[in-house]
Amino acid sequence: MKQLRVVQIGASGHYEYALPTIKKYGFDLAAIAPGDVTEDLTGALKKIGKIGYAPKVYDDWRRMLDETSPDIAVINPYMAYNAEMSAYALSHGIHVFCEKPVATTFADLNMLKNAYDDINKENDVKFCGMFGIMYAPHFETALRCVSSGEIGNVRLVNAQKSYRLGTREMFYSSRELLGGTIPWVAIHAIDWIYRICDFKFKAVTAVHSTEANGGNGDLEATAIMLFEGENGTAASVSADYLRPSAAPTHDDDRIRIVGEKGILEVRGGQVYLISQNGERTLENTPPKYELFEEFAMSVCGEGECRVTAKETFDTTYIALVARQSADSGRKIGIDI
Amino acid sequence: MKQLRVVQIGASGHYEYALPTIKKYGFDLAAIAPGDVTEDLTGALKKIGKIGYAPKVYDDWRRMLDETSPDIAVINPYMAYNAEMSAYALSHGIHVFCEKPVATTFADLNMLKNAYDDINKENDVKFCGMFGIMYAPHFETALRCVSSGEIGNVRLVNAQKSYRLGTREMFYSSRELLGGTIPWVAIHAIDWIYRICDFKFKAVTAVHSTEANGGNGDLEATAIMLFEGENGTAASVSADYLRPSAAPTHDDDRIRIVGEKGILEVRGGQVYLISQNGERTLENTPPKYELFEEFAMSVCGEGECRVTAKETFDTTYIALVARQSADSGRKIGIDI
Repeated sequence: MKQLRVVQIGASGHYEYALPTIKKYGFDLAAIAPGDVTEDLTGALKKIGKIGYAPKVYDDWRRMLDETSPDIAVINPYMAYNAEMSAYALSHGIHVFCEKPVATTFADLNMLKNAYDDINKENDVKFCGMFGIMYAPHFETALRCVSSGEIGNVRLVNAQKSYRLGTREMFYSSRELLGGTIPWVAIHAIDWIYRICDFKFKAVTAVHSTEANGGNGDLEATAIMLFEGENGTAASVSADYLRPSAAPTHDDDRIRIVGEKGILEVRGGQVYLISQNGERTLENTPPKYELFEEFAMSVCGEGECRVTAKETFDTTYIALVARQSADSGRKIGIDI
Repeated sequence: MKQLRVVQIGASGHYEYALPTIKKYGFDLAAIAPGDVTEDLTGALKKIGKIGYAPKVYDDWRRMLDETSPDIAVINPYMAYNAEMSAYALSHGIHVFCEKPVATTFADLNMLKNAYDDINKENDVKFCGMFGIMYAPHFETALRCVSSGEIGNVRLVNAQKSYRLGTREMFYSSRELLGGTIPWVAIHAIDWIYRICDFKFKAVTAVHSTEANGGNGDLEATAIMLFEGENGTAASVSADYLRPSAAPTHDDDRIRIVGEKGILEVRGGQVYLISQNGERTLENTPPKYELFEEFAMSVCGEGECRVTAKETFDTTYIALVARQSADSGRKIGIDI
């Protein structure tokens, strides 16, 4: 692969998705800038140092982008800044690997989509959200199985995100900076339903609550969403931060997909399939490439990144509509 | 316990809940009548014969009740007839053990509640719905654990009913006779949430669909309900008939209860608890008495049946509101 120059803005999300590929191909991780004056890069610089890089540290992310002219910007500041920074980078012809949600308001999402569409009228500038969980072997295995048609048409889905709350940085307490638990956490489950099930989202009714959030301000500790799809299909997403600290793992990611011909379930990192041949555990097979590797290859014209800009925009939009439903107490249509 | 006289109307539900107690205490199972001319009692008479009874068979359930003056009527015809028959029996001073849903329309439910209230102004006539799954050791164990306060206040619940479709009798194809999948199947999960979690149901949004129902007419093969409770609590119920015939068991009953201090889960007949002490499997402890045994004892003035008339009416009402939401596509308030 071509030697790409990469820069990083912020360190409040999953920039670590990019590190193995950067190291593997010897990319130039040229520079890093905080997304905000309050954002501490110490931990990130230590992790980056461990793979042998010492990027130049800028105060100003715009100046960094302008001066370094990178191929790719890895963007993960406080979530509220994702859209503005991504739009700026895209408009300057820089490919963007951005934390989800890529926008925390509908206005920002539209602004970002317009920036993406505008630059791509005469250029080919890539955009990808950090939906890295989809690349875990169990979700990859689920994707392959459902895509193969083994469970038939999907009729019903139940997905779950459950996290330990732990000690959260201050910006988690701020709806304005984080965007909320539905766009930050539940969006992964929305993405599984979108990608694995090819679910056609038509409407959502959601509930969320800041009760029992351990003093984390605006942070919703619990949420449930009911999504209505085409032709009577339905999907539920449950998300919570109430997984006890003594639980064996940080997260408890699950999806149960009920098809006309079988039921597939991801639970505890395993994939269980019940079909007309009985019940069995599928062998987990990892994807050929990691998410950022696939993205970098697509930037070099070597294949396509499976997380597309459209998927990134769509799932962000769906999450924002779900949050709006929970905020307003109303069922709201989803128009993709 | 006093020697009770019991009669049975219909055999389309869970009359078998009553048989072990009838045999154990040597009750007089005096008579049986079909709930409808199309209802076949052959299988029921065989099962009843196996425990040593040969009840007199009536054509007319009213005449049977009038002539035999039983202590208890076990009522499980096609579900649409539950309310009328129960109201008749209650009005004649007969204690009623009735299949759920105890009514399939709001009008019938109100009529039944009025009959119950009227007779109980000057009498003590008992009424109990067949919520027997609550008496399975794993649900009893979950009830005890949550009631003990071990997981703290409940903030979020995910419940599941999944059944093999198999070959269904004709009345399953009829909304008018069955009442639908939400009142017939999902009502169990509603009852768990009501009883185990003491959830205060305030509103519901639901989806159901007859797609993929294997040619069973009106029968909904899939449904999801989102219930909103007090103080930002939420509960989801998923119900389906798409469990493959080759699955290891007929049903896949689950509930996951997320509290402020821990998470309890019933799955595969086991109860898993994650608390501040880590994760462990609870020892399943059966209830002291079976449901019908507890009911018969309450009829004899020996203790209380934990499934109350109020619980039976409330859960039926909640299921009917959920069905109405699914039929109408609207979020609907629940006023208990």
